[in-house]
Amino acid sequence: MTIENRRSVAGAAVLRGDITTALRRALLEELAANGYGRLSIEAVARRAGVAKTAVYRRWNAKLDMVLEVVTEVAGRKLSLPDTGSLRGDLRLVLQILAEALRHPLASQIIPDLLAETGRDPDIAAALDRARRTVQDEVGVRLINRAIERGELPADTDADLAVDLVVGPLYWRLAIARLPLTPDDLSKLADATLAALSAET
Amino acid sequence: MTIENRRSVAGAAVLRGDITTALRRALLEELAANGYGRLSIEAVARRAGVAKTAVYRRWNAKLDMVLEVVTEVAGRKLSLPDTGSLRGDLRLVLQILAEALRHPLASQIIPDLLAETGRDPDIAAALDRARRTVQDEVGVRLINRAIERGELPADTDADLAVDLVVGPLYWRLAIARLPLTPDDLSKLADATLAALSAET
Repeated sequence: MTIENRRSVAGAAVLRGDITTALRRALLEELAANGYGRLSIEAVARRAGVAKTAVYRRWNAKLDMVLEVVTEVAGRKLSLPDTGSLRGDLRLVLQILAEALRHPLASQIIPDLLAETGRDPDIAAALDRARRTVQDEVGVRLINRAIERGELPADTDADLAVDLVVGPLYWRLAIARLPLTPDDLSKLADATLAALSAET
Repeated sequence: MTIENRRSVAGAAVLRGDITTALRRALLEELAANGYGRLSIEAVARRAGVAKTAVYRRWNAKLDMVLEVVTEVAGRKLSLPDTGSLRGDLRLVLQILAEALRHPLASQIIPDLLAETGRDPDIAAALDRARRTVQDEVGVRLINRAIERGELPADTDADLAVDLVVGPLYWRLAIARLPLTPDDLSKLADATLAALSAET
């Protein structure tokens, strides 16, 4: 396929009404590149190759665009199959979280938005919904399964369990930004298993 | 002391050459209120009650100011007395970290700067120094003491140990922003002790 052909395919996609998709992608790229504070509707429109009016037909302000993207991510359920044991489930959820935390959304955009939560209650609420999705998935599903299997006591503190599962990985990948080998992940799963068994 | 008197004391402090201190404080307040992206030298000078030229006599750009503040925080050593046991040391370091993480510097400014690290290698380096201070204090000092006491094996992975100690607390206070009771802190210390003992 020649460059000219590819251009016309992209053009056709935009003409077919994929402007919203193009704008969403442009928003994520702009957020990662320049941050929420410097984000402008003009830059998003330019990156998507559309007029500024195309943005304002869809969203009232940049905050509306950002909240929609965050809420969409919050809505996506973490897929967490039952491996039959708490250790297996832990290993799997740590792997899934490690993938998610290596995405630019975690390392670039989430810190931007976290910084905004103190300034904007709407951003705080949207991020809180996203966080609660992780909290429910890890806390309720993973811990409840372990309780049903008799691997953890029934009065296990689900909030604390989430801190123990998500915290070390988040610190390692999103804050310290140190590498994490498959061997590290195994050690982390063992350590987390011991922590969960000890917390009550 | 009347308001007039207090004003004249503050005025005298500025006259005595405390402009740098006033500017540093103003910078922290501006960062917390508006974020790095929207931070302007003008606003910092206005908040400190000095002319813009006073800023430019001290720093070349807003980045220089911010890096100095971060580096200064990195330089401050966490005070961590030896309690005689790993459990005691853990409980104490978790308490100290919990205090630090409730400070606006952690909840507002650090997320801003983390978001900038992908865009600016100087910010990345300054934050990395700050992070390594925590890493050394927790990893090297706390873990080495426990190894010397025979509470942990000599080949304990110090990086992973820091993830296990700092991560859950960071997630709880800086990301999830849920309350943490003294009882939670106790449970967390027990869980972390079990995790550290299991990780090797």
